Amino acid sequence: MIAKSAAGAPVAPDASLSPAIDLNADLGEGFGIWRLGDDQAILDAVSSANIACGFHAGDPATIERTVRAAAARGVAVGAHVAYPDRVGFGRRDLDVSPDELYCDVLYQIGALDAFARAAGTRVSYVKPHGALYHRVCVDQARAEALARAMGDYDRSLVLLALPDALALSECERLGLGSVAEAYCDRAYLPDGRLADRRTPGSVLTDVAVVVERALRIALDNAVPSVDGSEVAVAAGSICLHGDTPGAAGIAREVRRGLELAGVRVAAFAAR
Amino acid sequence: MIAKSAAGAPVAPDASLSPAIDLNADLGEGFGIWRLGDDQAILDAVSSANIACGFHAGDPATIERTVRAAAARGVAVGAHVAYPDRVGFGRRDLDVSPDELYCDVLYQIGALDAFARAAGTRVSYVKPHGALYHRVCVDQARAEALARAMGDYDRSLVLLALPDALALSECERLGLGSVAEAYCDRAYLPDGRLADRRTPGSVLTDVAVVVERALRIALDNAVPSVDGSEVAVAAGSICLHGDTPGAAGIAREVRRGLELAGVRVAAFAAR
Amino acid sequence: MIAKSAAGAPVAPDASLSPAIDLNADLGEGFGIWRLGDDQAILDAVSSANIACGFHAGDPATIERTVRAAAARGVAVGAHVAYPDRVGFGRRDLDVSPDELYCDVLYQIGALDAFARAAGTRVSYVKPHGALYHRVCVDQARAEALARAMGDYDRSLVLLALPDALALSECERLGLGSVAEAYCDRAYLPDGRLADRRTPGSVLTDVAVVVERALRIALDNAVPSVDGSEVAVAAGSICLHGDTPGAAGIAREVRRGLELAGVRVAAFAAR
Amino acid sequence: MIAKSAAGAPVAPDASLSPAIDLNADLGEGFGIWRLGDDQAILDAVSSANIACGFHAGDPATIERTVRAAAARGVAVGAHVAYPDRVGFGRRDLDVSPDELYCDVLYQIGALDAFARAAGTRVSYVKPHGALYHRVCVDQARAEALARAMGDYDRSLVLLALPDALALSECERLGLGSVAEAYCDRAYLPDGRLADRRTPGSVLTDVAVVVERALRIALDNAVPSVDGSEVAVAAGSICLHGDTPGAAGIAREVRRGLELAGVRVAAFAAR
Repeated sequence: MIAKSAAGAPVAPDASLSPAIDLNADLGEGFGIWRLGDDQAILDAVSSANIACGFHAGDPATIERTVRAAAARGVAVGAHVAYPDRVGFGRRDLDVSPDELYCDVLYQIGALDAFARAAGTRVSYVKPHGALYHRVCVDQARAEALARAMGDYDRSLVLLALPDALALSECERLGLGSVAEAYCDRAYLPDGRLADRRTPGSVLTDVAVVVERALRIALDNAVPSVDGSEVAVAAGSICLHGDTPGAAGIAREVRRGLELAGVRVAAFAAR
Repeated sequence: MIAKSAAGAPVAPDASLSPAIDLNADLGEGFGIWRLGDDQAILDAVSSANIACGFHAGDPATIERTVRAAAARGVAVGAHVAYPDRVGFGRRDLDVSPDELYCDVLYQIGALDAFARAAGTRVSYVKPHGALYHRVCVDQARAEALARAMGDYDRSLVLLALPDALALSECERLGLGSVAEAYCDRAYLPDGRLADRRTPGSVLTDVAVVVERALRIALDNAVPSVDGSEVAVAAGSICLHGDTPGAAGIAREVRRGLELAGVRVAAFAAR
Repeated sequence: MIAKSAAGAPVAPDASLSPAIDLNADLGEGFGIWRLGDDQAILDAVSSANIACGFHAGDPATIERTVRAAAARGVAVGAHVAYPDRVGFGRRDLDVSPDELYCDVLYQIGALDAFARAAGTRVSYVKPHGALYHRVCVDQARAEALARAMGDYDRSLVLLALPDALALSECERLGLGSVAEAYCDRAYLPDGRLADRRTPGSVLTDVAVVVERALRIALDNAVPSVDGSEVAVAAGSICLHGDTPGAAGIAREVRRGLELAGVRVAAFAAR
Repeated sequence: MIAKSAAGAPVAPDASLSPAIDLNADLGEGFGIWRLGDDQAILDAVSSANIACGFHAGDPATIERTVRAAAARGVAVGAHVAYPDRVGFGRRDLDVSPDELYCDVLYQIGALDAFARAAGTRVSYVKPHGALYHRVCVDQARAEALARAMGDYDRSLVLLALPDALALSECERLGLGSVAEAYCDRAYLPDGRLADRRTPGSVLTDVAVVVERALRIALDNAVPSVDGSEVAVAAGSICLHGDTPGAAGIAREVRRGLELAGVRVAAFAAR
């Protein structure tokens, strides 16, 4: 695990010797009458829920329902912050200034946290969504704005992002916790990056293969890359997809496979 | 003062014997490029700022600027919660269910509080806006939903509303603080209600008259009504308008008049 | 049929002697990534498509896809105008002024018509949605505003509404076409009104029963009411639902049943 | 004038020999309660009104008021189309696909045209706003999408854009009219581009200077650049600003100066 707390100690909630990993998924991505994915089934599998905060998806009633369901299962609540672009589902890059991004992130964390507080818990981490997720990997100014908003809200918030994200190092620089995530259903290139989603074979759908890769990530911090070589995948969390066909079944099997192998599934930043 | 804390003790931050009153105004009611009123000047006069939370007005950057300016002056931050109707500025009644209202209020309080926390303070009270302001006077289910959202977020939140609002009694029933407000620039009917804004003479613009009425409210809990009779106006706060011509000047004079008369201007729910 | 043109002549596009009826359904009620109902299947059954215009549902790309699919099948394009309330799906009454409603309706008709023109057709009718649909039955000022917006845009637009809607008589008064619609899957009270949707048995799901009632409406302008008595249902269109389980199958069977019985299914206001 | 019609003939509504130029300004850029600029005063000076269509500014009621005021003065109505980004006022680039842009533009033109039709006129031209205005200068795919949407709506629509915009040549390629615009209150570089707005002296505020430059553009198709050399500014329209201090006065003087010099101020695409 590469999860790091502000003080440098592991963020994992338990210091026991058994191996542990977090499972996260995007949830609450409906809006009003519209739904996306099978949130209840996915919530039964994960330890951390990235919950939409109203900017790319998620109205107050959807947020309330999702947070309550997560809290009832002891699943950690994360703020899935995004650009203000509902019609584009936050997937289109938007040329925001760092100050605008700072304010947008602060707004979303606070709005979500209100429901977490009402449900007896708290937002414990932040994961950027869509175009912002990719942007804070490479954009120093936005990475800094994101980290600064997190720290200004609550210095115990942890960032969940891709291993090479500049935002992770910005969080570390500000003394905030950071956790890298890996994908057990995506092919990796030898250099550790994900293969392009449009490349045939880059999205894995064979349950046995996906479970095996989850185990390798949890136990060995490594998976085979597309050319067969081992690639290091140091991750404190594995991202599961909730909106693909069969997603709920795969999520359930990944969790079961990890637990059968003695890997504890636990949030990296539980409250 | 009729301000009441959860425990029945006065909410006022100071127990000294000098008379005190709160001055509140609606602030941060711009959106993006658009501005409304002279926030900086009004902030210099009031002790409590009702700050728009994004539903009728107020984008994240506007909220940030407004909260920071209030916090810098020690002005209490209140959540000016509204229906989700930006194009109608929250002034049109919307047939929301109590559960929808509960969620909408929770969302807005949390979003605003994020900025308050980042500025080193906290949302200390809630004031409904526009059509919702009038609706929670008479609608039991919505009054209850509003009060419940407040209590579920933070049991130290205080409600600011019209003296006869059902929402005030709902807050009291739930053990939350509540404060009634009065208007020094509006004519009162003999029964204690405000004269219709469209009636000639119902909006007072003579600075001396307005200041005199503010003093009567603060010192005597009474003002002359339209027929000359005294009407009881028991209020812990006086609402000043920020978006009318001359508003900033009137606000400044009301504050100066109160202070010259030995009335302390202080937030009813400071942090 | 009670369809009336401005000049009093039947609106139906064909004056042949064979009986005819229109079938309409709500379509294009997704937004961005979100979808609702099986539009393609429903479009194969209906002759008129009530297409969301962006206020309760429908972003530009969804509208474009839906209009193009309707136009390709020769299905008439109708503007399904609504209150500006996406999160509430237009189902909550909103206290708009008649002038605001006039402007909102004009905006929506024009926006939809742009896609109709690009697809080689035109918006040929207007059907209000949700809370507005019910409101223009009883609210004279809003009924007038709706009719006025239609006439100001294009005097050949026809209104589709419930038989007792004030908006129908407002359209007639302004010389605009109007068509009443009936429901073959809803129980009717002896007075001709729909039974409350929440009453057990008020929503019919037996395909054979629904088809039989569609035939009665088309051929006899009457259906049995809940007490067994005949009730007159003079309608130029039958509304089919697109978002209930089995909706597509029921729609297909209604159309097939009508055609087998020699009833021509044809838009009341085709271009 | 470089205004070109689809058939290659001048777009100008009058073939008389007196010199003519169009004056355009951005109008209707309020939203709900919020206003921007002095629309009435600017409307008295211009011949073409770029009216916000609801995406960066402009709600239906604001659009109705603005279109009616323009039509009453015989000012040509143009669709000021933008990215869907109200909080950013359309000034932030958004990574839309060409198909999304096509749909967004079609929606906005149609919505605005509904009000134009109700006021007895028609949208006669399109001018992109903000980040989109600059993007279609250099982005071939978006320029093509914009031109295609215009042509699919109405082949008589004319594009108003910067002289070097790819969108102008796309319109010409599709056989649509196109007009380039110039600025009489901005400094030009020797290569014909505008000096950066943030460079001191790049925004001209001396009324006499601004009027003189408007005359040079209208009569000579040229202005002095920042280094004193003449630069060719072939333009069928001059853009006036409406939201700067003194804007209304400058607009009035530019029009007066042109008319006194015998230059006819006339829309390039009147209906």
